[in-house]
Amino acid sequence: MMVRKPTPDDKFSFGLWTVGWPAQDPFGSATRPWLDPVESVHKLAELGASHVTFHDDDVIPFGSSDAERDKILERFKGALAETGITVEMVTTNTFSHPVFKDGAFTSNDRRVRRFALRKILRNVDLAASLGADTFVMWGGREGAEYDSAKDLYAAHQAYADGIDTVAGYIKEKGYGLRIALEPKPNEPRGDILLPTIGHALGLIAKLEHGDIVGLNPETGHEQMAGLNYTTGLAEALWADKLFHIDLNGQRGIKYDQDLVFGHGDLFSAFATVDLLENGFPSGGPKYTGPVHFDYKPSRTEDFDGVWASAAANMSTYILLKERAQAFRADPEVQEALEYAGVFELAQPTLNEGETLADFLADRSAYEDFDADEVAKRGFGFVRLNQLALEHALGARG
Amino acid sequence: MMVRKPTPDDKFSFGLWTVGWPAQDPFGSATRPWLDPVESVHKLAELGASHVTFHDDDVIPFGSSDAERDKILERFKGALAETGITVEMVTTNTFSHPVFKDGAFTSNDRRVRRFALRKILRNVDLAASLGADTFVMWGGREGAEYDSAKDLYAAHQAYADGIDTVAGYIKEKGYGLRIALEPKPNEPRGDILLPTIGHALGLIAKLEHGDIVGLNPETGHEQMAGLNYTTGLAEALWADKLFHIDLNGQRGIKYDQDLVFGHGDLFSAFATVDLLENGFPSGGPKYTGPVHFDYKPSRTEDFDGVWASAAANMSTYILLKERAQAFRADPEVQEALEYAGVFELAQPTLNEGETLADFLADRSAYEDFDADEVAKRGFGFVRLNQLALEHALGARG
Amino acid sequence: MMVRKPTPDDKFSFGLWTVGWPAQDPFGSATRPWLDPVESVHKLAELGASHVTFHDDDVIPFGSSDAERDKILERFKGALAETGITVEMVTTNTFSHPVFKDGAFTSNDRRVRRFALRKILRNVDLAASLGADTFVMWGGREGAEYDSAKDLYAAHQAYADGIDTVAGYIKEKGYGLRIALEPKPNEPRGDILLPTIGHALGLIAKLEHGDIVGLNPETGHEQMAGLNYTTGLAEALWADKLFHIDLNGQRGIKYDQDLVFGHGDLFSAFATVDLLENGFPSGGPKYTGPVHFDYKPSRTEDFDGVWASAAANMSTYILLKERAQAFRADPEVQEALEYAGVFELAQPTLNEGETLADFLADRSAYEDFDADEVAKRGFGFVRLNQLALEHALGARG
Amino acid sequence: MMVRKPTPDDKFSFGLWTVGWPAQDPFGSATRPWLDPVESVHKLAELGASHVTFHDDDVIPFGSSDAERDKILERFKGALAETGITVEMVTTNTFSHPVFKDGAFTSNDRRVRRFALRKILRNVDLAASLGADTFVMWGGREGAEYDSAKDLYAAHQAYADGIDTVAGYIKEKGYGLRIALEPKPNEPRGDILLPTIGHALGLIAKLEHGDIVGLNPETGHEQMAGLNYTTGLAEALWADKLFHIDLNGQRGIKYDQDLVFGHGDLFSAFATVDLLENGFPSGGPKYTGPVHFDYKPSRTEDFDGVWASAAANMSTYILLKERAQAFRADPEVQEALEYAGVFELAQPTLNEGETLADFLADRSAYEDFDADEVAKRGFGFVRLNQLALEHALGARG
Repeated sequence: MMVRKPTPDDKFSFGLWTVGWPAQDPFGSATRPWLDPVESVHKLAELGASHVTFHDDDVIPFGSSDAERDKILERFKGALAETGITVEMVTTNTFSHPVFKDGAFTSNDRRVRRFALRKILRNVDLAASLGADTFVMWGGREGAEYDSAKDLYAAHQAYADGIDTVAGYIKEKGYGLRIALEPKPNEPRGDILLPTIGHALGLIAKLEHGDIVGLNPETGHEQMAGLNYTTGLAEALWADKLFHIDLNGQRGIKYDQDLVFGHGDLFSAFATVDLLENGFPSGGPKYTGPVHFDYKPSRTEDFDGVWASAAANMSTYILLKERAQAFRADPEVQEALEYAGVFELAQPTLNEGETLADFLADRSAYEDFDADEVAKRGFGFVRLNQLALEHALGARG
Repeated sequence: MMVRKPTPDDKFSFGLWTVGWPAQDPFGSATRPWLDPVESVHKLAELGASHVTFHDDDVIPFGSSDAERDKILERFKGALAETGITVEMVTTNTFSHPVFKDGAFTSNDRRVRRFALRKILRNVDLAASLGADTFVMWGGREGAEYDSAKDLYAAHQAYADGIDTVAGYIKEKGYGLRIALEPKPNEPRGDILLPTIGHALGLIAKLEHGDIVGLNPETGHEQMAGLNYTTGLAEALWADKLFHIDLNGQRGIKYDQDLVFGHGDLFSAFATVDLLENGFPSGGPKYTGPVHFDYKPSRTEDFDGVWASAAANMSTYILLKERAQAFRADPEVQEALEYAGVFELAQPTLNEGETLADFLADRSAYEDFDADEVAKRGFGFVRLNQLALEHALGARG
Repeated sequence: MMVRKPTPDDKFSFGLWTVGWPAQDPFGSATRPWLDPVESVHKLAELGASHVTFHDDDVIPFGSSDAERDKILERFKGALAETGITVEMVTTNTFSHPVFKDGAFTSNDRRVRRFALRKILRNVDLAASLGADTFVMWGGREGAEYDSAKDLYAAHQAYADGIDTVAGYIKEKGYGLRIALEPKPNEPRGDILLPTIGHALGLIAKLEHGDIVGLNPETGHEQMAGLNYTTGLAEALWADKLFHIDLNGQRGIKYDQDLVFGHGDLFSAFATVDLLENGFPSGGPKYTGPVHFDYKPSRTEDFDGVWASAAANMSTYILLKERAQAFRADPEVQEALEYAGVFELAQPTLNEGETLADFLADRSAYEDFDADEVAKRGFGFVRLNQLALEHALGARG
Repeated sequence: MMVRKPTPDDKFSFGLWTVGWPAQDPFGSATRPWLDPVESVHKLAELGASHVTFHDDDVIPFGSSDAERDKILERFKGALAETGITVEMVTTNTFSHPVFKDGAFTSNDRRVRRFALRKILRNVDLAASLGADTFVMWGGREGAEYDSAKDLYAAHQAYADGIDTVAGYIKEKGYGLRIALEPKPNEPRGDILLPTIGHALGLIAKLEHGDIVGLNPETGHEQMAGLNYTTGLAEALWADKLFHIDLNGQRGIKYDQDLVFGHGDLFSAFATVDLLENGFPSGGPKYTGPVHFDYKPSRTEDFDGVWASAAANMSTYILLKERAQAFRADPEVQEALEYAGVFELAQPTLNEGETLADFLADRSAYEDFDADEVAKRGFGFVRLNQLALEHALGARG
């Protein structure tokens, strides 16, 4: 048995900073040299990816002159043209340079806030010019180590204002871009603003231009808060805000590992793919965007290992996709879902047309309800989960 | 030195289920007998509390007849009248009885959803009749252990519909109640829906009657996800949704400990009190509701220990309040806040009246911006934090 | 494809408290009635288990008279005889009764320490009389919520003394029993003594009778501290102290979930089975004891669900065992292990017979060592992990 | 009120890598320039420190020639002589250079293991020549991201062999050095060998030269596994293995924060100082070594902030020391400790001279023991903890 090769229908996409990561970490220096983005584009195309994404500084070094920038972009577009790879998302580096040490949109230093906003607006133009659909904003430095270090009202307001300015600019320019916020609970700051999918949804709800602002949830980031990634995706979908995804692997609550997708919590990855590919059991909105990987090839690897790791993301996704399709197609699974009441949950709690008065008058719902009797129902969740596990493991072929 | 006694201005409030907890846990049976709520009301009044709160079943055992219920409530109201204690919040137990084993508003069993809704609506009437301001909803059983066990779209929808039905009922009845949702990441379910303040804000934004729905964040619940409680309160305040609070103590990411306030992360508790009592450094909305404790007297304690623990919550709060006031009043602290740019963050990033075009034309913001130079600014956050620590410790007298 | 049935060679073993758990939890009452241990023995035998284990109180209610005890045991032995099930391990409940609220061997109340020791010694006799090999001690209540509540030197000493007394008794009686300590970081106490495999190894090293004291590590308990269970088993094996195992599932750092084996971190479960069944790549000690499951059927399940969950533990183990065997047998895997230097690690760092003086004189080891050149080696760990993942998923059949 | 200045009796010690950290992190480049160790020595002396510690590479850049090394050391010793600062501990950097990417003593590459051992032995000579007492070994790269990447038996054996070789060398040379192992659960590796104090104790117990090998536990490292640092110190003291300490601050389970001591879990820091300064309530071994800080000045700080942060560690320690002394001296605290049975725990469980036969014959211990009656004892732990909290806060002055 072999895992099939990726195809354009898989819509696989990679950040150039993933394969290009030189593998320095908090306790050690780089183990790999700089990797030419043009080479990455070619190599990712060979491996079966359809799209790439990048931070401005991944392709154009911070501080490049306009002339250097143009030259670099020319060459980069050449690689895209040669390979058929497209740029589906662009994002801005507002975290690496020391000037951003206290944040970008929420730095206590107003000069930095203005600079960050300009850097981002400039990058919006680039994203639009490359035909990207999504503009990701990860506010990795928006946060604090200490509770007195921020006026937290002002910080939320400055964050919201910053996003609204960018969104307003996109609309003014008529760009076909949507903004996707990427939550993370901590690292590199002690506590990061918008730590989870939920907190970002809460902020978006207060924006002036919230209609074009949604989410780019990352597997490991939610898991760093001990949260269920798939459940988070579901709330984002329910709120119509799942604009993009960052898939990778994380082994529990610790530093951000950025492992290959599936190399963290494998069974949770199965659930994620099941939701992304098959949607909710009783229907509803579905994610239709690119399958984007945001991972880091381990520091122990040379370039052979880098490309093997890139391929591994796609192979694992393909495998889990096939397994998830078989899971849903299995009549025993359908029966177990029925038994567990999974479809029943989609039935509204009130009857069609039932008024509050009707409902309050329904004695079967309360006065005559036999709680002890109803409580005897077993839901069969463990059996259902075992069916899922056996499908994930390809054991019910 | 002695900690001063609580006064009505402190607005201290206790859940009756706190002191009344008989101290059974997952591995052991009760170590204390049932405690009469009437006795609790008297004792809490003596200790200096001004308010109590309760779940319906804390006062009126599940399954009581209407006659029993009336008798119990009569006696309970008597205790309130005698002591001057008022009921500021009421909440509904939709988690203890086996019938709720798969949830209340989101149980896969529609009969359970209907029963839960009726139980809650009945309790709304009680809350209103007792003059409560807040109706808390903790959906402790709304969740799952397994990723296939729920249609997560239907679950979010059913949750939202349930809340909207209750909110609509409150409006229809003209009750002076606001709903406050209480997030929790897990326990007793593997993953609970609305795991954090953020996720609840995200849901509220989609409600029909979201205007009377806000938050009741609990210290330990946010900390169980490794999140900063004070930062969460700040986002809720920023969104105008901090309707109520549940203070307690938690020592890191583990099972829900419900320790005395301050007996968990003490320095974080100082920051919480600083925000609640002093507000944001540059102004903005402030929390003005009761100071509500939701804790459990440890299983090792007898009733003397129960009452000592209740008093400890209030003493710690009073101490931290005095320390937080001294912290803000200290000119050295004000200078350090200024130095750190904390006030600067409240200045909007764009100038008054500055258009996008103006901003893009400001060369000082980008083209002539010297990132390396600006990056040299030290923020003095560690010194500021040390000032906070020394004030918390009463060492700058 | 079907998962094969368990056989006696699988040596599957279940705690009677697992299937017998009535499913009360900190926030809700029991959802299932008491289950007769005799029924459990019969049912587990039917499902393919070979052994059972129990706490004294699981079979003989706390406080039973001697006559009741004898009667109960008689009937219980009958069930064992009828089914061929044997008792491979016995353990003592020193955590449920309120008297143990501050611990057993380390309760601050000396009367409790003496009572606990007697309860345990009595249970040692029972274990020996039933032919058990292992006597597990889980000190779930040995700990504290507060740092001042214990003299931590006295606590460690009392713990060690208690274990030594029991071990000395076993030797004196000539019983064929070994003691296995079960670490856990927290819950039901805020911090539990001997929180991990390591801490227990540290204590055992100081015991007088440490030769018959080892470990019974539980999957979820190590994972509650964010630790790698398989790595912990490895240190225990290296120290010759892996006397018994408790397999189950846990989804990250949170309350003790006791899920079915594999229903937590599935890929980590694969690694565990790989170690248990295949041993270390270059040889060394192997675990040869029973495969013991210590899990809880979810509170949402009725008895059908209980038995389905019991079967699920075994099916998952069998599946992972087959996958792990195929993994090791795959020539590509062997080549990848070689490439990664996994076998090379078993070569001693010093040459055979090399003295310190020789080693210090070897210029190739330091003076002439080209660190930059050697650093270029890629280890191929990601590829190796992907091979493991694909074998776990049955995708390299 | 002012915090008093440090004195030599405080025995404060700082790693040169702490104040010298240039503040690069996984997502950003250095915000501070290289700091001359000679300057650090002078500055730390001014602030009141008595000792410094360092990794070889902190003072002598990796790859320096012998001549450069001699010159650097000459100048460094000059600074020590001028200031009176002494070097109490030395440690080896076996984690920063890419050659150590898979570890030092446990790298799968045997050449690396040999090089690491030589680098460490050379550093032992330096430590001895500088009169250090302690030789710390932090195996930050000894570990793996993937379960198949290591032969875990070989890894533990290679680790133990490496330590034994170094310990044997120290003995052979007659150096007055003791080795102190520093555990850490993860980061920079996914899982690090010897993840906690306990695991290191377990390994030490199997060493040939374990008599001169002990522990250097770091506050944040234990807390990254959710463990209680003070309890860990206590087990190390109980095992006579607390050779050195690394104090700092950590805010929960996340990446390694290395905050100022007290800027993490403040109340836990109080308990730590209480143990270090006051010892166990009923006596036993006490830590008498230097008070060593291993922290990182936040990346937002300039050099003023660096020195303020260094001073903050000492101020906080001094404050907590004074508070802990007052706590123990308070008669109400002594009474509460008595009430709680804290002293009672130091009474052996068996009577002086009591044999097992005597004990089994004591009916009061079991047959006539009234568990329900004894269970009624309240331990007053919450009151005791509140007394500790109020002393920590200086509110019982």
